[in-house]
Amino acid sequence: MINHVGREIPDQLLARYHKEGYQGMAYRDSRPYTKAAPTVRSNSDPGRSKLVSSLREALERCQLRDGMYFGFHHHFRDGDYIINMVMEEVARMGIRDITICASSMGAAHDPVARLIEEGVVASIQSSGVRGRIGEAISHGKLKRPAIIRSHGGRVRAIEEGDIHLDVAFIGAPTCDEYGNARGVGGKSDCGVLSYSMVDARYADKVVVITDCLVPFPNAPASISMTDVDYVCTVEEIGDPKRIVSNVVRVTKDVRELMMAEYCTKIIAGSPYFKDGFSFQTGGGGAALAVNGMLRPIMEEKGVHIGFAIGGIMQAMCELMDAGLVRKIVDAQVFDSAAIRHIQENPNHIEISTSEYANPMNKGAYVNKLDFVILGALEVDVDYNVNVVTGSDGIVRGAPGGHPDTAAGARCAIIVAPLIRGRIPTICDRVLTVTTPGEAVDVVVTDYGIAINPRRQDLLAAYRDSGLPLRTIEELRDEAYRIVGRPDPVAFEDEVVAMVEARDGTILDVIRKVKTE
Amino acid sequence: MINHVGREIPDQLLARYHKEGYQGMAYRDSRPYTKAAPTVRSNSDPGRSKLVSSLREALERCQLRDGMYFGFHHHFRDGDYIINMVMEEVARMGIRDITICASSMGAAHDPVARLIEEGVVASIQSSGVRGRIGEAISHGKLKRPAIIRSHGGRVRAIEEGDIHLDVAFIGAPTCDEYGNARGVGGKSDCGVLSYSMVDARYADKVVVITDCLVPFPNAPASISMTDVDYVCTVEEIGDPKRIVSNVVRVTKDVRELMMAEYCTKIIAGSPYFKDGFSFQTGGGGAALAVNGMLRPIMEEKGVHIGFAIGGIMQAMCELMDAGLVRKIVDAQVFDSAAIRHIQENPNHIEISTSEYANPMNKGAYVNKLDFVILGALEVDVDYNVNVVTGSDGIVRGAPGGHPDTAAGARCAIIVAPLIRGRIPTICDRVLTVTTPGEAVDVVVTDYGIAINPRRQDLLAAYRDSGLPLRTIEELRDEAYRIVGRPDPVAFEDEVVAMVEARDGTILDVIRKVKTE
Repeated sequence: MINHVGREIPDQLLARYHKEGYQGMAYRDSRPYTKAAPTVRSNSDPGRSKLVSSLREALERCQLRDGMYFGFHHHFRDGDYIINMVMEEVARMGIRDITICASSMGAAHDPVARLIEEGVVASIQSSGVRGRIGEAISHGKLKRPAIIRSHGGRVRAIEEGDIHLDVAFIGAPTCDEYGNARGVGGKSDCGVLSYSMVDARYADKVVVITDCLVPFPNAPASISMTDVDYVCTVEEIGDPKRIVSNVVRVTKDVRELMMAEYCTKIIAGSPYFKDGFSFQTGGGGAALAVNGMLRPIMEEKGVHIGFAIGGIMQAMCELMDAGLVRKIVDAQVFDSAAIRHIQENPNHIEISTSEYANPMNKGAYVNKLDFVILGALEVDVDYNVNVVTGSDGIVRGAPGGHPDTAAGARCAIIVAPLIRGRIPTICDRVLTVTTPGEAVDVVVTDYGIAINPRRQDLLAAYRDSGLPLRTIEELRDEAYRIVGRPDPVAFEDEVVAMVEARDGTILDVIRKVKTE
Repeated sequence: MINHVGREIPDQLLARYHKEGYQGMAYRDSRPYTKAAPTVRSNSDPGRSKLVSSLREALERCQLRDGMYFGFHHHFRDGDYIINMVMEEVARMGIRDITICASSMGAAHDPVARLIEEGVVASIQSSGVRGRIGEAISHGKLKRPAIIRSHGGRVRAIEEGDIHLDVAFIGAPTCDEYGNARGVGGKSDCGVLSYSMVDARYADKVVVITDCLVPFPNAPASISMTDVDYVCTVEEIGDPKRIVSNVVRVTKDVRELMMAEYCTKIIAGSPYFKDGFSFQTGGGGAALAVNGMLRPIMEEKGVHIGFAIGGIMQAMCELMDAGLVRKIVDAQVFDSAAIRHIQENPNHIEISTSEYANPMNKGAYVNKLDFVILGALEVDVDYNVNVVTGSDGIVRGAPGGHPDTAAGARCAIIVAPLIRGRIPTICDRVLTVTTPGEAVDVVVTDYGIAINPRRQDLLAAYRDSGLPLRTIEELRDEAYRIVGRPDPVAFEDEVVAMVEARDGTILDVIRKVKTE
C-alpha cells in the first residue's frame, strides 16, 4: 500500500506483523480499545523477601525462556550499564531470540551488536538506535525488523498490548528491599523514572536493579513495590558522569543565534504567546538560546509559562527560579542542575511517559502544548521530518518525543540549518518519514522561515512581521543551489526496520543498505 | 460447604456468583492471575474539551445503561454529596438496576435506601453499610446480595476483574479542565484520593466531579487526566464540616485508659518494638491514647517509627513533628490537622489503596506492618472478629482495613471492652466472621489479655511481663458470667450479603433478619 504520507509499505509486511499503514493523525482518535494486562503472581506473605543475591538469581527466578520480550528504560542515557549487564548474563544462560524493548538505546549499548550476531537478541524495539546497533539493523542482522517508536508510541504499544513485556528491568538510583524505586538519591541519580512506569505496570515480571538500597519505605515511589517481583543490588547501575551532562552549550554560532532569534519572534508574535502558555525546548544550541531570548520579552509583557515539559535542563529550571514558570512536568532530566532542582522544588514534578505523550490515553500533556522547538536531519516539501536515518541510509537517531510534541503542539517549530556539510536539510523527499508533515507548523532555517500552508492562520499572523518568510520549495531550491541535489542512497528490498506512527500504524519502512 | 472458619456457605450461592469458600489466609498467595483492563476511548485531539455543563450531560455522554456498575470513593465520609447527587440524577433518567461499588458508605447515603426500594439500585458492594442502607440490606431489599469487602479486597476485586466498573465517579477537592485531580486545595479538602486510584485505572469511563476548578496542570495529580473522560463542576461536593472531624477524643474513661496501657505494654514488650518499627492505630479512644503512652518510651529508648499508616490523625502527625516518625504513608485522612500536615510535610505521603492493602498485588504496605490496633464488635474463642453485624443481626459496620492489617501485621491487637451494655464482646461464636481468627494475635479487654495460641512466641514473650494474661475461653466465661449468654438472633434462610475475604473467597454470609 501507499500510506498517507506517500510511502510504500509492503502489504506482506503489514499482514505478517498485524499492522496497518499510516492513515493520518486523526485516524485512531476517539477509537475505543481494551487495554492490555499483565499476568502476575500475588504476594500476601509478609515473610517473603524480594531481595535476590545476584542478577543471575533474579533471571532464574523470572523463569526466562527463548523468545521473550524485555523492557528497559534509558534514563541513564550514555551511562547505562543495565542493558549490557542483563543481556550478557542472559547470553551466558544460553537464552536466545530475545526482543529488547527499550525506551531508547545509544552508544552505551554497542556490545548488544555482538549479541545480535550471536542470536541472543532477535529484534530491537526502541526510539533511539545508534552506533553499532544502528549499523547491525541497517545491515539486516536482526531476525525480525526493528520497530522504531516515539516515546508516546512506546507507551501506547505496551498499553494496547502490541508489546507484551515478559520481564521489565528497571535500573533505579534508589530502591528499598520491597521494590519501591525512585529516580533520586544514591550515587547514580537520574532524576525521574518516567519511562519505566509503563513497564512496571504492564510487564509480567519486574526486576529492579539498584546500586543504592535504602530503608523501607522509599516513598514517594516512582515505581511501586506493588508491581515489583525482585530487587537486585549491583556495584554500579551506570556511569554517573555519562548519566547526565553538565555541559550546557551556550551557542556563539551566528547562524544558530539567528535561528534562535527567528524562533523567539515566531513564539512572541503568535496568538498563543500569552500568560500561562506552555513550552518544550530541545537541547540544541538554537533551542537553548530561545530560553534566554524569550525571558526579557516575558518579563516585559508579564507573561509566565504555565507549564514547561520535556527533557528538562538548567535553563528551564532557572526560568522557574526567576518566577517565570509555574510548573515543570518532567519525563526526562538532561543535566545535574535539573536533578537537584526536582528534589528541591515542589513545582518541578515527575510525570509518567503516558502522561507526557501517549496518544491513546484519555489525554496527554502534549495535547496541551502551545510551542515546541524540535530539530531535524531532513525536512521535505511536504513538511515531513526525518530524525532517524543518516544521509548514508543508516539508522542513527531517535524520534523520541518529536512526533508526539509536534502532533500535540499548537505551534510545532522545526529548527535546522539549511545545509549540513554537503547535505541539504530541506529536500524533495526525506529518506525516512519519522514525523508526518501534517504535524509540523513552522520550519526555521538560517536562510528563512517556511510556514506550513495548512496553517493559513499562522501565515496571516506573520505576514507583516518582518520575518524572512519563504515557501518550503524556495528553501529546498536554495539548498540544492548551494550543495546540489544529492545522489539517492542505494537500498536493497529487504525491510530492516519499521517506523511506527504514534498510533501504531506504519509511517515508513527502512530498508537494508546496499554494500558494494 | 463449611469453609475454613467453620461457616456454612450455600453451594448454590457460590456457584451462582462464581465464588469459592474461604480456605485460609495463604490459599491464594503466590497464585498467578491476569489482571483486568478497561475499555477506553482515546483522546489525541488537542481541541477536545472534557468539561461538561452539568452532571446530566456527563451521565448522558457516559451512555448509561440499566445494570451498570458504578464506582465511588468515601474520602468525604459523612459529608459526601456525590453518591446521592449522581444516583438521584440516574433515577431521573429512568436508569435501573445499578450496582453501587463504593469504597464505603455511611449515614450520608440514607437516601439510597429509597432508590433500592424503587429498583434504581439493584445491589451494593462496599466496605461500610450503615444506617438505612444496612437496614434495607438486612431486610432483603436488594435484588442481588450485597458484597462486603475490606479496603484491600475491593482493590483486588477490581484489579482481578471480579468487579468491572462501567463508570467511576470521583469527587475531587480540586481538578483542572483536563481531569488532573487532587485531594487538597479548594473548599472541600479530603487530603488524599487513595480509594479512587484503582477506579480511575480500571473503569471504562471516569467522571471527576469538583467544586473547585483550578488552572492546568493540577500537578502532582492523584488522579491523572490520562484516565479521565469528563470533568463536571458542581456547587458543592460535600459538607466540609462532616468531611473531617476535628474532634480528637482524648479519653478519660478509666477502662479505655487501662486497655491503652495494656496495648502499650504489649507493643513496648514485643520483639518488634525496635527502631524503625511500623504502626497503625485506629481512631478509638484506647487506640488514640496508645500514641501518647508510647511516646515517652520511644523517646527514652531512642526508638522511631519507620512508617505509620492507615487513617491518619493529628496524634500521628504530632509524633512526626516531634521527630519520632520517619514517614507517614496515607490512604485516608481523618481530621483537618492531618490534611494540613500532608500539604506541608514531604514525608507525609499519599499512597493508593492497592499499595496500602491489596493482597493480590506484588506486596502491600500491610505486609510490612509490625503493629496494628483494631476494634471489634465481637471476638469469638477462635479469635474470629465481627465488625459488621450488630447484636440485632443488622448490617451496621465496615471491615475497612481491619482484615488487611490484621493479616499483614506481625502483631495484630484487638482492643475491646469485655461487655458493651448487656452484650458480651468475647463469645463462643461471632455472628459474622469479618476477620478470620488466624490473623488475630492479641485480644486486649478491660478484664485481661488473650494471646492467640497460634502465637506461642508471643505467649512466651509476655509470660513474665506481669500483664493479666487469660485464655480467650476465660474471657468468654467472664463475659457470660456478667451478662449471661445472649439469645441467638433469628434469621431467615435468604442470604442478603456475602462477606468476602481479602482474596475474594467467601468468609461468611449474612442472612435476612426475621421480623415478627
